[in-house]
Amino acid sequence: MKVTHIKDILPVSMDNDQVKNVNGRLLVGKEDGATNFCMRYFEIEKQGHTPMHTHDWEHEIFVHSGTGEVFIEGKWHPLTQGSAALVPSGVEHQFRNISDEVFIFLCMIPSGAPEL
Amino acid sequence: MKVTHIKDILPVSMDNDQVKNVNGRLLVGKEDGATNFCMRYFEIEKQGHTPMHTHDWEHEIFVHSGTGEVFIEGKWHPLTQGSAALVPSGVEHQFRNISDEVFIFLCMIPSGAPEL
Repeated sequence: MKVTHIKDILPVSMDNDQVKNVNGRLLVGKEDGATNFCMRYFEIEKQGHTPMHTHDWEHEIFVHSGTGEVFIEGKWHPLTQGSAALVPSGVEHQFRNISDEVFIFLCMIPSGAPEL
Repeated sequence: MKVTHIKDILPVSMDNDQVKNVNGRLLVGKEDGATNFCMRYFEIEKQGHTPMHTHDWEHEIFVHSGTGEVFIEGKWHPLTQGSAALVPSGVEHQFRNISDEVFIFLCMIPSGAPEL
């Protein structure tokens, strides 16, 4: 079992040519005994974004707070607190913040994919 | 792909001998093409709780808002906004609200388990 809190997990900062102003935290993963899927927590700061990329595993995401967009299948879709999305395997996608506040979402992936 | 919002999904109310003051929503499931795991959204109203039960699949949960507790391995653990937990397969567990406000959490399960 595991009971934790985001304040007790150090974030990993991501900032390069592909990713801007993103912090990620692994909340539950294979080291905790999660054998089927893994739960991550992402904060995208103002003007930040994840990479535009494609991979052979899906995302299930839920917006905890803030306002952003997800690019799937050639267009941008709005995301607000309470939004949820499935990005299927093999589909090009990107997440971005479109407000001045931090855009925060959970992102679950199947086991076997890189956890963070 | 799927992009949705909690306001666009009708909740299922649960209230019986085992479950009190709980609403559940299936956010992403197998009908959406999610083959590995499923994402649900639960609201537990004041004095509400899920059943004390055991089953052969795990939960990964994240607290969206409110204050509650989870019973795992014989004791209650506090949960606040930003808490996350893994309830392993085969372990007796229960969630309950301990405040006057709604306690809201996401609960992910592997595919094959009952979705709601």
